[in-house]
Amino acid sequence: MDWSGQRVLVTGGAGFLGANLCHALAGRGAKVTALDGFLFGGGANPTNLDGADVELVRGDIRDIDLRPLCEGAAVIFNLAAQTSHMGGQADPLADIAVNAVAQVRLIQAAREAAPDAIVVHASTRQFYGRVEKLPVDESQPVAPPDANGVSKFAGEQYWMLEHRVRQRPVVSLRLTNCYGPRLRIRDARQTFLGIWIRCVLEDKPFEVWGGEQLRDLTYVDDVTNAFLAAAETPSCHGGIYNIGGSPPASLHDLAELMVRLSGGKAHYTTREFPADRARIDIGSYHADDSAFRAASGWRPMTGLEEGIAKTLDWYRPRLKDYL
Amino acid sequence: MDWSGQRVLVTGGAGFLGANLCHALAGRGAKVTALDGFLFGGGANPTNLDGADVELVRGDIRDIDLRPLCEGAAVIFNLAAQTSHMGGQADPLADIAVNAVAQVRLIQAAREAAPDAIVVHASTRQFYGRVEKLPVDESQPVAPPDANGVSKFAGEQYWMLEHRVRQRPVVSLRLTNCYGPRLRIRDARQTFLGIWIRCVLEDKPFEVWGGEQLRDLTYVDDVTNAFLAAAETPSCHGGIYNIGGSPPASLHDLAELMVRLSGGKAHYTTREFPADRARIDIGSYHADDSAFRAASGWRPMTGLEEGIAKTLDWYRPRLKDYL
Repeated sequence: MDWSGQRVLVTGGAGFLGANLCHALAGRGAKVTALDGFLFGGGANPTNLDGADVELVRGDIRDIDLRPLCEGAAVIFNLAAQTSHMGGQADPLADIAVNAVAQVRLIQAAREAAPDAIVVHASTRQFYGRVEKLPVDESQPVAPPDANGVSKFAGEQYWMLEHRVRQRPVVSLRLTNCYGPRLRIRDARQTFLGIWIRCVLEDKPFEVWGGEQLRDLTYVDDVTNAFLAAAETPSCHGGIYNIGGSPPASLHDLAELMVRLSGGKAHYTTREFPADRARIDIGSYHADDSAFRAASGWRPMTGLEEGIAKTLDWYRPRLKDYL
Repeated sequence: MDWSGQRVLVTGGAGFLGANLCHALAGRGAKVTALDGFLFGGGANPTNLDGADVELVRGDIRDIDLRPLCEGAAVIFNLAAQTSHMGGQADPLADIAVNAVAQVRLIQAAREAAPDAIVVHASTRQFYGRVEKLPVDESQPVAPPDANGVSKFAGEQYWMLEHRVRQRPVVSLRLTNCYGPRLRIRDARQTFLGIWIRCVLEDKPFEVWGGEQLRDLTYVDDVTNAFLAAAETPSCHGGIYNIGGSPPASLHDLAELMVRLSGGKAHYTTREFPADRARIDIGSYHADDSAFRAASGWRPMTGLEEGIAKTLDWYRPRLKDYL
């Protein structure tokens, strides 16, 4: 697909994944509009779009008029979301307002203003909940473990319904934990890895909760490539796909890798899961993403060690912008 | 369980299932508050509570202060919903506002005002979507076929989360098509059977769309007994249960039964599914409700022929109140 001159809307475009995608799209010559509400505690950071030829619109998907933003878009990459699990538990009304109700608003606006646009929706493995069998493919029953899982499933399903009832080309990518440049590292609101990275760079100990849980982290460039491939591959349209990353590693293994990559300077403590998080914890997860690999030709290219090293290197000169 | 003197809140209490439940509870001596928003096109009918010693509060679950209504309730039967499939497609924002967002409001109000109340939630088989294997048990993956299925699944899951995270005794009953006295029969907004009943009583032809689809209709007294049993059986609390009814019959069989029970006077035409409904049609369904039968001792007691006959008899002298 030739992105040059294509109008593209990226919701959540100043956030971690959205901003990386905007950089990639602008680099391919697309005319990119990034919409972001800069929600408190969210992943948006104004410096995330530094150096990208992107129009940033500050606006909340819950109330901004979305039609002018959709107008003429060939592709909508839909990443705006409330993504914090504890945030969803603390304020489920705000969580569903962004992740489900506002999705209906965007669907209705796109019907009017961009009836033919391809939509790639950022979904999540979260609503599979605590699974018994690994790896997890798309036939895994849905069992949301928290309010955020409930709202994100609803949002995805509205989009898939738009495909079934109105034939819009929609692809939903169910992402696992993602990491890399432009991740929120101020605290643990955007994966545990954010705060680990900050601690390592500040020479402070980080905390490992539990430690045996497996994760298949995806480096952000691989996520970006998955979004682009989803849009570019017509045979994917109408599909829901799990997206995995590096081979599964335990949180302890990850912690040891952080120590090694810091030249032995980083250190960490291990503690029990806090009770309020244990109740919504999903245990181990890794994706079976063979369906998306087969359909699109995509595969993750960045190994865990390489990805973590690149991430630490990227943040070192920019740390102050992310605290 | 001795219902005498127990404070009970029934949301959607002036609707079809809610009102029948209110009559049963009041008959057992419970102090019943029925909340109903009398949504346009919904199942509420002011005459539904005639003759029942029930306090009716007219108010919309989306904005009324729910805490005073929850205060002191031993049990909350939660039936308030937007239940129309085409209604959900036409106005998905109103649909999710009632079926999911307002559920969060009720959960939060109940935390404050009725922290120990048992909650029995009226859920639906709708979000199983189009299934391949019958009968359907609770392990069937969720695949909402329409906006109403999306919102109703979200609402149920918020309640089950309240059980898992805060240990509230919650039971969710996934109902199939229900029928009987106090059903909305003005039009087809509350199952196809409503408008069939009206047509039969008015000596007008009714329409059968398709005809081969199987349904396991539940007579309303059996639904009421399922709600009571769910509240009364502690081992059910925390569970999600399918509720079935009479043995599966095709829509054609049902139509023929209507003709027979009318003494041959009723007549019907068969037509193709309208295109807008075909896209969200679920095909055949009947429930495997053995889990709830085993847990609670409940079973449906009213056969289809008996139930339809009782329903027609009930409406004959009351038809004008339901047009």
